[in-house]
Amino acid sequence: MKLIPEDLRKEIEIRIEAVRRHMSKAGADALLVATNANIYYTTGRFFRGYVYIPLEGSPVWFVIKPDVYDREDNVAVIHKPEMIPGKLSEMGVPLPEAVGLEFDVLTYSEVMRLRALFPQAQPVNGSPALRLARMVKTPYELSLMKEDGIHQAEVYRRVTRCYKEDMTDVQFQVEIERLLRLEGCLGATRVAGNLMDINLGSVVSGDNADVPGPYDFTMGGAGIDPSLPVGADGTTLRPGTTVMIDMNGSFNGYQTDMTRVWSIGEIPELALRAHKCSVSILRALESMGTPGTPVASLYDKAVKIVENENLTHYFMGHRQQARFIGHGVGIELNEQPVVMARSKDSLLENMTIALEPKFVIPHVGAVGVENTYVVTPQGLRSITVFPEEIQEL
Amino acid sequence: MKLIPEDLRKEIEIRIEAVRRHMSKAGADALLVATNANIYYTTGRFFRGYVYIPLEGSPVWFVIKPDVYDREDNVAVIHKPEMIPGKLSEMGVPLPEAVGLEFDVLTYSEVMRLRALFPQAQPVNGSPALRLARMVKTPYELSLMKEDGIHQAEVYRRVTRCYKEDMTDVQFQVEIERLLRLEGCLGATRVAGNLMDINLGSVVSGDNADVPGPYDFTMGGAGIDPSLPVGADGTTLRPGTTVMIDMNGSFNGYQTDMTRVWSIGEIPELALRAHKCSVSILRALESMGTPGTPVASLYDKAVKIVENENLTHYFMGHRQQARFIGHGVGIELNEQPVVMARSKDSLLENMTIALEPKFVIPHVGAVGVENTYVVTPQGLRSITVFPEEIQEL
Repeated sequence: MKLIPEDLRKEIEIRIEAVRRHMSKAGADALLVATNANIYYTTGRFFRGYVYIPLEGSPVWFVIKPDVYDREDNVAVIHKPEMIPGKLSEMGVPLPEAVGLEFDVLTYSEVMRLRALFPQAQPVNGSPALRLARMVKTPYELSLMKEDGIHQAEVYRRVTRCYKEDMTDVQFQVEIERLLRLEGCLGATRVAGNLMDINLGSVVSGDNADVPGPYDFTMGGAGIDPSLPVGADGTTLRPGTTVMIDMNGSFNGYQTDMTRVWSIGEIPELALRAHKCSVSILRALESMGTPGTPVASLYDKAVKIVENENLTHYFMGHRQQARFIGHGVGIELNEQPVVMARSKDSLLENMTIALEPKFVIPHVGAVGVENTYVVTPQGLRSITVFPEEIQEL
Repeated sequence: MKLIPEDLRKEIEIRIEAVRRHMSKAGADALLVATNANIYYTTGRFFRGYVYIPLEGSPVWFVIKPDVYDREDNVAVIHKPEMIPGKLSEMGVPLPEAVGLEFDVLTYSEVMRLRALFPQAQPVNGSPALRLARMVKTPYELSLMKEDGIHQAEVYRRVTRCYKEDMTDVQFQVEIERLLRLEGCLGATRVAGNLMDINLGSVVSGDNADVPGPYDFTMGGAGIDPSLPVGADGTTLRPGTTVMIDMNGSFNGYQTDMTRVWSIGEIPELALRAHKCSVSILRALESMGTPGTPVASLYDKAVKIVENENLTHYFMGHRQQARFIGHGVGIELNEQPVVMARSKDSLLENMTIALEPKFVIPHVGAVGVENTYVVTPQGLRSITVFPEEIQEL
């Protein structure tokens, strides 16, 4: 689905209004947006430059490059950010009294440079306003994410065909990556923050599923080199183990997050039971997950179900356990809210969250299901529709 | 090549000494390293946490996760950075008077949090010390990069086999990605800063090579979606055009950067002449590039050769022209120095730089060669050894 320019303009207006509601709460009378994901959110395209969003009046795009754009009003071509105040004055836009900058994304050096543009203005953290606005998706954003879910499921449907006996987890992953890319996957994972690295996703099997990692992914894995310690490590796929597939779902600037499990031959009863428990958790949270529900209560409910099944020891990892079972997803893989015990967020209609209650069973591998959901008045609605049972390779 | 732990320890000592030389010039008596690429550089592995490097005495690793490591001394497990000062005191390490933090990589919020750990200390920018140290590679780092070059060339050797008539640039790229991954490529591009996005590389052909992009890559390309505006855009590969392949060379935490050009059928004389000009530039810069040579003089020399050939109009792009012809490469794709007119750096022995004098010929595509070089007393030595002429598909 591509919007015609007039509809894209309306879409952007909706997003800007959402950002403004949070800005004014934060005490900023203008935001200067300077990072890729937020420029994309507030303009619908990528350029190198800045988006100046005053509380009132039209946003101004300051474009460094490319020097082509599909809008004629409120665009100024600049070579460096120091030209912004002068251009604003030329355009008759008053300078801000409190300017929001992306403290949580921009580097310290970048913030120091940008705050010097407005020496009379109070700099405030603009990141929360953007994060909170992005948390709730517009109908157009939801339509893009639904497309992602359809493409991702289409690839998962063909996963079994990628398997050959005695292949390694890496070889298996590479064939899935190829299918993803031919299906239109953009081939990169957009992650917020600079602490997580990943390639096109996580494929873990057998003992490698139990290798603790440094990143905030639910699963670890050694990776094939110490410089990218996550996921597949070259393990040969062996009978009696599972293969958990949690691969990239970015086809259009948004993404879905989806995990399914395949097995080789028979796997132990404990693994089957844990997988069923994951599915039960999802069913329980789907009906709980209406607007207004505290996010922490989803986490607590999951933990309770796991305790009742005596599976705590394996929940969200075994040698190392993650302390969250889900997260917002959208332009970036790791958006707000984080589904964890100390979350203070509540669900809002049209939030999109991935829930991934998973278990690591020593010497077998990981089990569990992850879906991406839209929060609706009727509960969570999955947009990653694909059979949830463990499938045999 | 994997080092035994004792040799890795010595390797790390060499790197720490290099960092310290630049630290003391910057007036810092300690560095607190907190970002992935620099943790990897200063420890040889990845963990979530911090590396405290005093000017004298052993570095201390503060590990959040994973809680496993192959060193017993000078490691402290922490849950949050606020535990660092107390742990240092327990270990008898004096607190810093001027602490270096990565101002150019850490977010503003992270710097504010970390500087509060040492309220009595002057915070200084620790990024340059790390960047300058990383610019010159150790023999072990060079050996890893040479391995990258061999793997990358091995894949380029098989590129022709990936081609089928009437395929698109994306389909071509996907088959090359598969070969790269099966050859051991880690599957992600580690780029410094948060302004550049890319998947496993750039494949541009025909008119798409002339589409200006927002990023600091030498080549543009529309990409297949506005959310990742770089490289292949789904163009069908047609006779009379070139295909420029500039794909990922990361196999071991380091990377090489290498570009070659293929053609479909005959291409215009102008394109052939520009390609030869690129090769001449490389030959000229290779012999100039001894330690002590000003980096800017390499750029100036290239520009002069291009002017003599009357090719300025197409150099480093056509509708949009890049203002640099090369860059340092190592753990990250875009390291120092940048080979541009206003560079103030001079070459140092064992720097590794990628040189990529390229041309965009309208309606034909891009031509030119990129190699990764080591700076030696005899000039630049290529570690991306592969035929440089345009090969026919």
